[in-house]
Amino acid sequence: MHPGTLDEIDTPAVVIDVDRAMANIDRAQAYADAHGLPLRPHIKTHKLPFFAHAQMERGAIGITVQKIGEGEVMADAGLTDLFLPYNIVGTDKLKRLRALAERTTLSVTADSAATVKGLSAAFAGADRPLAVLVECDTGMGRCGVQTPAEARALAEIIDRAEGLAFAGLMAYPAVGKPAETQAFFAETIADLAAAGLQARVVSNGGTPDLWRAHEVTAATEHRPGTYIYLDRYQVTKGVGTADDCALTVLATVVSRPTATRAIVDAGSKALTADTLGLPGFGAVVEVPGVLVSALSEEHGFVDLAAAPNGLSVGDRVRILPNHACVVSNLFDVVHLVSGDRVVDVLPVAARGRVG
Amino acid sequence: MHPGTLDEIDTPAVVIDVDRAMANIDRAQAYADAHGLPLRPHIKTHKLPFFAHAQMERGAIGITVQKIGEGEVMADAGLTDLFLPYNIVGTDKLKRLRALAERTTLSVTADSAATVKGLSAAFAGADRPLAVLVECDTGMGRCGVQTPAEARALAEIIDRAEGLAFAGLMAYPAVGKPAETQAFFAETIADLAAAGLQARVVSNGGTPDLWRAHEVTAATEHRPGTYIYLDRYQVTKGVGTADDCALTVLATVVSRPTATRAIVDAGSKALTADTLGLPGFGAVVEVPGVLVSALSEEHGFVDLAAAPNGLSVGDRVRILPNHACVVSNLFDVVHLVSGDRVVDVLPVAARGRVG
Repeated sequence: MHPGTLDEIDTPAVVIDVDRAMANIDRAQAYADAHGLPLRPHIKTHKLPFFAHAQMERGAIGITVQKIGEGEVMADAGLTDLFLPYNIVGTDKLKRLRALAERTTLSVTADSAATVKGLSAAFAGADRPLAVLVECDTGMGRCGVQTPAEARALAEIIDRAEGLAFAGLMAYPAVGKPAETQAFFAETIADLAAAGLQARVVSNGGTPDLWRAHEVTAATEHRPGTYIYLDRYQVTKGVGTADDCALTVLATVVSRPTATRAIVDAGSKALTADTLGLPGFGAVVEVPGVLVSALSEEHGFVDLAAAPNGLSVGDRVRILPNHACVVSNLFDVVHLVSGDRVVDVLPVAARGRVG
Repeated sequence: MHPGTLDEIDTPAVVIDVDRAMANIDRAQAYADAHGLPLRPHIKTHKLPFFAHAQMERGAIGITVQKIGEGEVMADAGLTDLFLPYNIVGTDKLKRLRALAERTTLSVTADSAATVKGLSAAFAGADRPLAVLVECDTGMGRCGVQTPAEARALAEIIDRAEGLAFAGLMAYPAVGKPAETQAFFAETIADLAAAGLQARVVSNGGTPDLWRAHEVTAATEHRPGTYIYLDRYQVTKGVGTADDCALTVLATVVSRPTATRAIVDAGSKALTADTLGLPGFGAVVEVPGVLVSALSEEHGFVDLAAAPNGLSVGDRVRILPNHACVVSNLFDVVHLVSGDRVVDVLPVAARGRVG
């Protein structure tokens, strides 16, 4: 069956420009290769085995997943080297984690003795120890040990724990602060050496500072996620231009109640309420300077003050969202296009894997 | 199979206190009965045939859906009287709308001649005309004709259109302004009468002003949605108390990186980034005064400044979200509980029906 053209897609729908996505993968891989810094892309952005395989074929050393459910989907699809940078806590999840580890090369993170204790209990007696990295808070203020001394102490706990192997360090860094991440890693590595421990893997992440990833010289790998699609936020960070962005939400104008207001059929159920600090919730690609300024669940409010005659009921527009990853999670399928031609319609296999 | 207890549910998960939900339905129905104002609940909040049937059994005259996909799911589940207050635009959707109308009692809205033209083309030759209400913007600033004169003009267009029947008026009102909605409706009804037209149905909506719905005396029905679950926002509006809220997100503390920060495994993929103008993204039920203050996709940041020893890794908490409806849309299943007993696990049948 011919999947048709862009004009035939019912709205709202996620449209992925596959040529742009592949170019984004290649651009990052070329940068990484030039700096000798392996990539381990985060699949949370696309949640698709198709692109995970594309990332591997183009040079990635493995993939990153954020939840066990994402890892299970990727393992089912034949991905074999998975990093899960999350504290896995609770009996059910630890059981699933062990099952996943038995069929993949799996590593995880921990940032507390409590998490390590659970992991150790779950992997006691396993054929292979579970590789555990210490999550470090190098400035993001989310998870992670707070100091190199804490990192070393936790590494020693992991090293002694039955069923586990200390494998290294991981950070999800604050944006614009590679130097802080490098300093944290370097001090910790020295501390570990003094304790006779080696961080085999030092994993750094994030797309906003992707082109500065080489500044974190301690890193042995980088985990970019959003780079494959990019979005309004990443454009503001200079990671790419609007013309590099691969994911848009196709929408239809359903109302033109006033001269300056259009309503499209893509609301928070299609775009999410994520602003990432930007004005509006998305940019209308076809009408430069025009934003989706407010959202209800099924209504996007388009402010046409800058282009009062810009849109009519029935017009179809593409909206560049603030944050691509969260949009992927809202749709059961995405449409891959090349130009105006739909080349495939893919189920978002790892959508909704919250656990 | 015994679905178990609250303690056995893996996190993050949506938990619905079925006793509270039924009490909320009953309370609203009793109010509506006392005022002789029929209810047509909006199923966007729960997206579950189970609760749609419960609302009907407890006295609703029909249900409201926001997208055709929601209507299809509800029709498949045996719901027969559907109101779809949305401008249906585009060939594919109009085809599905006609198919849905052939197996249900269906009405829709329109706010432009363009929308009416499409509806008329789709329903020309239908056995029964499609009932079309004019959507009125009585102050919300979303869709809808802007004045009673525009409403009358559009009603006349609908009345003349092949395949359609003018059925009345509809508004999604601004919060706290029942008087404005009443004034708009009353003036329009008078205008229509002068043109020989009658608004058989005058449909008003919303939960925030549910207990003032009777002030809109022109209304022949009210469409509350969130009232069945309630949420933090509705509590601030005085619709109910925190103890009336039926939907919470069960989460696990996965990190305690600092004395004042806990991280739970419910992020924006579980709670959404909707603030509805409130501080934070949810309240931790077990620790009064403590909020989820920030979100990543899989991480909820809990600010423990007010309760530094309040939570440990592995603790399970229930989070009352700002906005219940958007949470329903993120989960494949919800857990119905009575006290601590899980009485059922239901697929969210109408989840993700964006079109």
